[in-house]
Amino acid sequence: MKTADEYVASLAAMKHNVWMNGAKVEKPWEHPQIVPGVNIVRLTYEWPQVPEHQAMVTATSHLSGKTINRFTHIHQSADDLQKKVEMTRLYCRATGCIQRCMGADALNALSIITHHADSAFGTQYYPRLLEYVSFFQENDLVGNAAMTDVKGDRSLRPHEQADPDLYLHVVEKRADGIVVRGAKAHNTLAPYAHEIIVLPTRDMREADADYAVAFAVPADAPGITMICRGAAPAVKRLMASPVSSRYASVESLTIFDNVFVPWERVFLCGEWQLAGYLAETFATYHRHSYCGCKPAISDIMLGAAALVAEYNGIDKAHHVREKLTEFMITAELVHACGLAASLKGQAMTSGTYLPDLVYANVGKYYAGTNLHHEMALLQDLAGGLVVTMPSEEDYRSEEIGEYLHKYLAGPSNLTVDDRVRCFRLVEDLTASKYAGLMMVASLHGGGSPEAERKAILRSYDVETRKALAKKAAGIEA
Amino acid sequence: MKTADEYVASLAAMKHNVWMNGAKVEKPWEHPQIVPGVNIVRLTYEWPQVPEHQAMVTATSHLSGKTINRFTHIHQSADDLQKKVEMTRLYCRATGCIQRCMGADALNALSIITHHADSAFGTQYYPRLLEYVSFFQENDLVGNAAMTDVKGDRSLRPHEQADPDLYLHVVEKRADGIVVRGAKAHNTLAPYAHEIIVLPTRDMREADADYAVAFAVPADAPGITMICRGAAPAVKRLMASPVSSRYASVESLTIFDNVFVPWERVFLCGEWQLAGYLAETFATYHRHSYCGCKPAISDIMLGAAALVAEYNGIDKAHHVREKLTEFMITAELVHACGLAASLKGQAMTSGTYLPDLVYANVGKYYAGTNLHHEMALLQDLAGGLVVTMPSEEDYRSEEIGEYLHKYLAGPSNLTVDDRVRCFRLVEDLTASKYAGLMMVASLHGGGSPEAERKAILRSYDVETRKALAKKAAGIEA
Amino acid sequence: MKTADEYVASLAAMKHNVWMNGAKVEKPWEHPQIVPGVNIVRLTYEWPQVPEHQAMVTATSHLSGKTINRFTHIHQSADDLQKKVEMTRLYCRATGCIQRCMGADALNALSIITHHADSAFGTQYYPRLLEYVSFFQENDLVGNAAMTDVKGDRSLRPHEQADPDLYLHVVEKRADGIVVRGAKAHNTLAPYAHEIIVLPTRDMREADADYAVAFAVPADAPGITMICRGAAPAVKRLMASPVSSRYASVESLTIFDNVFVPWERVFLCGEWQLAGYLAETFATYHRHSYCGCKPAISDIMLGAAALVAEYNGIDKAHHVREKLTEFMITAELVHACGLAASLKGQAMTSGTYLPDLVYANVGKYYAGTNLHHEMALLQDLAGGLVVTMPSEEDYRSEEIGEYLHKYLAGPSNLTVDDRVRCFRLVEDLTASKYAGLMMVASLHGGGSPEAERKAILRSYDVETRKALAKKAAGIEA
Amino acid sequence: MKTADEYVASLAAMKHNVWMNGAKVEKPWEHPQIVPGVNIVRLTYEWPQVPEHQAMVTATSHLSGKTINRFTHIHQSADDLQKKVEMTRLYCRATGCIQRCMGADALNALSIITHHADSAFGTQYYPRLLEYVSFFQENDLVGNAAMTDVKGDRSLRPHEQADPDLYLHVVEKRADGIVVRGAKAHNTLAPYAHEIIVLPTRDMREADADYAVAFAVPADAPGITMICRGAAPAVKRLMASPVSSRYASVESLTIFDNVFVPWERVFLCGEWQLAGYLAETFATYHRHSYCGCKPAISDIMLGAAALVAEYNGIDKAHHVREKLTEFMITAELVHACGLAASLKGQAMTSGTYLPDLVYANVGKYYAGTNLHHEMALLQDLAGGLVVTMPSEEDYRSEEIGEYLHKYLAGPSNLTVDDRVRCFRLVEDLTASKYAGLMMVASLHGGGSPEAERKAILRSYDVETRKALAKKAAGIEA
Repeated sequence: MKTADEYVASLAAMKHNVWMNGAKVEKPWEHPQIVPGVNIVRLTYEWPQVPEHQAMVTATSHLSGKTINRFTHIHQSADDLQKKVEMTRLYCRATGCIQRCMGADALNALSIITHHADSAFGTQYYPRLLEYVSFFQENDLVGNAAMTDVKGDRSLRPHEQADPDLYLHVVEKRADGIVVRGAKAHNTLAPYAHEIIVLPTRDMREADADYAVAFAVPADAPGITMICRGAAPAVKRLMASPVSSRYASVESLTIFDNVFVPWERVFLCGEWQLAGYLAETFATYHRHSYCGCKPAISDIMLGAAALVAEYNGIDKAHHVREKLTEFMITAELVHACGLAASLKGQAMTSGTYLPDLVYANVGKYYAGTNLHHEMALLQDLAGGLVVTMPSEEDYRSEEIGEYLHKYLAGPSNLTVDDRVRCFRLVEDLTASKYAGLMMVASLHGGGSPEAERKAILRSYDVETRKALAKKAAGIEA
Repeated sequence: MKTADEYVASLAAMKHNVWMNGAKVEKPWEHPQIVPGVNIVRLTYEWPQVPEHQAMVTATSHLSGKTINRFTHIHQSADDLQKKVEMTRLYCRATGCIQRCMGADALNALSIITHHADSAFGTQYYPRLLEYVSFFQENDLVGNAAMTDVKGDRSLRPHEQADPDLYLHVVEKRADGIVVRGAKAHNTLAPYAHEIIVLPTRDMREADADYAVAFAVPADAPGITMICRGAAPAVKRLMASPVSSRYASVESLTIFDNVFVPWERVFLCGEWQLAGYLAETFATYHRHSYCGCKPAISDIMLGAAALVAEYNGIDKAHHVREKLTEFMITAELVHACGLAASLKGQAMTSGTYLPDLVYANVGKYYAGTNLHHEMALLQDLAGGLVVTMPSEEDYRSEEIGEYLHKYLAGPSNLTVDDRVRCFRLVEDLTASKYAGLMMVASLHGGGSPEAERKAILRSYDVETRKALAKKAAGIEA
Repeated sequence: MKTADEYVASLAAMKHNVWMNGAKVEKPWEHPQIVPGVNIVRLTYEWPQVPEHQAMVTATSHLSGKTINRFTHIHQSADDLQKKVEMTRLYCRATGCIQRCMGADALNALSIITHHADSAFGTQYYPRLLEYVSFFQENDLVGNAAMTDVKGDRSLRPHEQADPDLYLHVVEKRADGIVVRGAKAHNTLAPYAHEIIVLPTRDMREADADYAVAFAVPADAPGITMICRGAAPAVKRLMASPVSSRYASVESLTIFDNVFVPWERVFLCGEWQLAGYLAETFATYHRHSYCGCKPAISDIMLGAAALVAEYNGIDKAHHVREKLTEFMITAELVHACGLAASLKGQAMTSGTYLPDLVYANVGKYYAGTNLHHEMALLQDLAGGLVVTMPSEEDYRSEEIGEYLHKYLAGPSNLTVDDRVRCFRLVEDLTASKYAGLMMVASLHGGGSPEAERKAILRSYDVETRKALAKKAAGIEA
Repeated sequence: MKTADEYVASLAAMKHNVWMNGAKVEKPWEHPQIVPGVNIVRLTYEWPQVPEHQAMVTATSHLSGKTINRFTHIHQSADDLQKKVEMTRLYCRATGCIQRCMGADALNALSIITHHADSAFGTQYYPRLLEYVSFFQENDLVGNAAMTDVKGDRSLRPHEQADPDLYLHVVEKRADGIVVRGAKAHNTLAPYAHEIIVLPTRDMREADADYAVAFAVPADAPGITMICRGAAPAVKRLMASPVSSRYASVESLTIFDNVFVPWERVFLCGEWQLAGYLAETFATYHRHSYCGCKPAISDIMLGAAALVAEYNGIDKAHHVREKLTEFMITAELVHACGLAASLKGQAMTSGTYLPDLVYANVGKYYAGTNLHHEMALLQDLAGGLVVTMPSEEDYRSEEIGEYLHKYLAGPSNLTVDDRVRCFRLVEDLTASKYAGLMMVASLHGGGSPEAERKAILRSYDVETRKALAKKAAGIEA
């Protein structure tokens, strides 16, 4: 396994084509609006070196038998799934989002669908994928999962779009590989990933066959352009944006302008029947991941809520305690789904363990549709200062700083500096661009609430329940 | 293990002192308003004989090594806990409530607290309890857990009540045992149980020491009077009350009028420090059980909802499908908590496995506070006929029956009889005394929502979350 | 205006063809399961005699200039609408449902649509209707609005049904009138009404023209059969069913088997273009009425909640006070909609005032989808005794009554009798057939939640809001 | 009445002591982070000149009989109150928040409490206030209501704080006036207001008498320092922050460092018994205002939601239409409360009309606790681009702009530019600092949800409801 510094060094050896705010970013790994994203990934290289974390954050490769980073592992048991969801919660308590889960989720989904494809269509994707997984594990790589197409008019299928490139598709098949064109949106971590793993975004029909394509390419492959929205700058600030200036995702809108992919990195190509299955399988893994990261957000918000109540002197109030309990209930309903999805996970034909689809979806759905309420609770406990507090410059000012030190005081056993820091934390978590990102990510990350509801409805065994009702009513089958 | 008939025969050999509607009930096991309760318990004797159910509904005694009914088992592993919660869901899909769980929950709780008492106070409760468990398993008994005192003025502690008997307490200690007086409320299954297992209902202080008492007595012990509210009569009806006339709980307000308990059946007596711990431990087990039974109710309601939508010809409507999904989400959030509580269950000092308190409480809380919404959804899909449908007598009437057969028709591929049955099912489930019972039981069974919130808040590790928030804010410990 | 006794006498002079439980009911107005319904209507004859109520419950006829019962009035101003909704709340605080509103709502809707029909189609419905209103006011009549057809397969339009009678329709047009066949469901109050006012239940297309029919007939017209589900018997009980044995609606499934209607009572006949408009206009009036009656239910439930908290000794607890506040918020959100719908009501072409459609629908929708939660709150505060309390016979028993008097005691300053009464009230309101009726009526009375959402969406001015958003975004029209 | 330019000129003639980001702001009315606030106030001077708005936004002074800006009016009727709440909605559809309401709300509250004080304590506050109102109307002034103290440790009363200045108080009484010290937080509009109207923030006890003080001072009075958090800069941007760069509030933390107030501007001084009443009366007026502005936010969000659905090509989807309906229901429940509070408003002893407290509180409470859900709905409909869309600089870039123009396309009948604008609008409304401000303002503006619940509970007539329940239960008073 690599060290964090080796990870950054390996980025420096690549040539990501990254743009931000209208300009080319020369050394993305050092850019102040990208460093908060790199910091997160660094952590995933650091913890495997920390003895107390090792049992959870590393695994034994079923290919090489070696100890590997769990983020490169193909899950071989329900226990692997449980460790993954618990590891995710642990990491995200520190970082909000750990990002690196998506590569693992993509590889696991591919390990199921390529195996399935080979038996259904006589292809040779699965052995190819195992080669790739070995390479991935050996080099301890970071993979971005590029799934969501830009989609254009969502009422139209891929091949019906006015511009055929609005979904990524194969534009040429050659002896040595394929050429693809299109764009993938919301690619968290792409500008500091080693690999881009591309998956189809939805079910396809025969006319969409060219769009049914999955593959991996180096993140700096010719033809790839990443246009990014940056995190809050990782400058030295004492108080403001305390979370998001240290740890925050960076997303890329990733353009594939006639990118060449050699056959040994192509994992689906034209088998349109499996596009939806692959998308859904990735989604199941990724929603399972959310059952770890969203409770971690609740953990931080609960902590902030308990803290700000103290800094306001209201921690004994009954309604405060009731509100704190809300965070607990939300966090554990979601995490319970993650654990249940693990416990009821099953081995697929390739041996890979897949979490239970219903539990993974129910957990993500509940998390996604309740975060806004948690934000409201935290803002409710904190009060108006969250948004009206003067700036740090005012607080440090020679002329007026004294006023603020006087009038921002809370209970006298607590320092004013810390009280200000606490409000800045609440601001960062609930009333900032970063908060906006968290809200939208909770809804749409891993799929929208509507997608989750549909997945649940489609896979749920309603007939068994109808039979129960018929029996109860005395209706003969 | 006994057969169902042997169970009933064993009841016939006892002399329960049962009253209902102002009159003594001579043979409770045959009384039409008690038979629906007996029917449920019969099922718990039948399924252990059914090969496909055996792995789930039986267990191996850790005392005798024999195969026993799982409802008499002391859980020895997380897997035992998982089987218990899954068994509960399976049974309750047929019966709504399986009742017999409470005896097992009481024995398991006692197996933890008696062990604890012996090491803390040098008592000999644990070996006594093991004797009792052996007897209980050997004879395949049904136990009622009598916990909730009538409580009088709830703002007062037990010893402060105007009448000292408003909480059950020890009134005399003799060489051979103790004499107790008081009343326990809401004792489901008591009139057809073999044993009454009495537990304290809350935490106690030193002045309440006489109220800190736990013991077991035969259900027909001298001095016990059961005053019951009956189920819907188990008469032969074609349509009405299709669930509750077959399977429904009967509750007793159980009076203990100077009841003698020999020392070998006394499991706590005066150790007031442990009263709350015992109450909470039983509650944890019982809330864990609810994570099985409440999803079963959702299963039945989902089935009824899907069915009634068909019988109305609206099953394709988008809003109908959305509403069906609500049942799924609710059911699985709760059941996920049951599974998670099992998976994270831990061995206590006696070796007994205890489900995770937080998950058990979160699951029961969510179930209890969402059933009313599920009822609303089912009524919403069914429409006004649920409550305005004329009686079965009208439907069978020679004079007017034809009108009803004509005008109660739904989609023409479905029979009118079945449509009427379907509405009667919805009525029974949502708009009847039985529905009232289900609603109140979902809120208060195993403890009220407020009790569950308090249990969560009390046991949740808030300090760890505050530390996360401090670190995120840059506040030094 | 009539007295209450004159009202009953006038029923005795009619020959309603009423059936219940498979038997013909000879004197409906005296039948113990119908008397609770008659009691409600009696009240609407009593209060106009009570000086303190007169200003609210009477009105001045715009036809005769005489003082009339407000339930026979055609609203002439926003103030009339406000008085109607406030009168409804006042009455329903006593009775739960006042029933008589529906006749007024039907007449008012007809006064708008007949006027509209006459100008659109050159018909003479409006003068006919005014004649009928004069007759109705003069005789201080009670009208049932028979709207909801039995509908058969709801995915089919009226003329597409397997049996053409599943929606009521004209089967013959004669010189002196029309003959109709079909059945109307959920006809509250029909067995003790003077008149049945029939309205179409939905929008129609040309092929459904025979189904676009509105008219009035005496409730005992030849060919009408009412098959009823009765209220709780109005027997002399000391405690049980304290509300529903005194005041409760009775519904009829009303069969029209070739009923003759003279032309002077026909108000729509074939003008299918107006069927939906009439249905929606009646619905708007009736949902406006719900903005009065549902807050009254909240009033009673709040009172019961505050009371039962006292009888349990928990009235000082913070969570109890929070729950009480929930009832207040729910009640006043709904009533505010009733007031706003009145204030923003507008005169239609006939001069009749129509409440604002959006506010009327929003209010009813909110009420209908929140009652179940209010029931949960009340059950939560009351506890398990709501459903496990032994019967009144047990309480009165010589043998065991003393036990109950002892063990059902609450705070010592309150009597046990009253505590039992209080729990019986909560049972009646939340855990009984009556509660089931209340729940379903809150959802479906005046139309289902889905119907209300559609009405809101259809009539809401979305374009104005889109223009606001475009302007805000800088998008040129 | 002034013109907008005269308003700005009048600011230029003053010397507000304003600080932002650590520096003194020399001409606040021109500062790019304050101009968005000034723009809002300008509008309140423009509309009174626009014929179609005049009837709503002007009033006739009850003092001078002249036509005045309604924001300087003392409400004389229920119709005045209705116009105020409807005017507020209309203005806020353009600006989000109109700010100027607070001055009117403060004057109206003072007109009630000063009158009350004079009769209770023989003071002469009311005539003084009328003088001030005349001056205010005559000069068409903008008033900031400075109410919320910084509060320090909220578990302590004003006089108990470690630093006595943590609530504003009188430090000296002189022959010509008083001297005050303290700080008021969250003072929207203060840096571009003419006057600061100070009110006590809560109920007081005798020991807090020095804190029971209300007065008005020019916003540039000596000793006042305003430390502000600015709005998004009002720079020329094509797309980003389209709302908040044009119209957004600016808040001040306003320091009163020994500020002198002449007696003729003192409206309460030491009458601690009335402090709570004044605070609550202002809150009632201000919550009533929220029943106008919050529906306006819903209006804009509904428009944005309908628009973004079109730009995504999903406007026909059923779930989209359901979500649009949610905004309508929320908006109109709140506005209905505003209308009902107006309709049921009552004249106080001074003749001033006060909106109904319960309706005003219920409406604000519902608005405040539902905005987060509306944000979730809007984000749900929009999708991930809300937060991951590259910057405007990227979109305009010569090198990569073409990619974005290609891949951000939606339905082909709509322009890409407009689609980008639409997403920028959603970002501004839901995922920005401005959105954070909106969320916190919805909760805490005019008081927190907890304050509103308490106000409702305290003033609601529970006894009448208990009497209803007793009567229903058969319990004798």
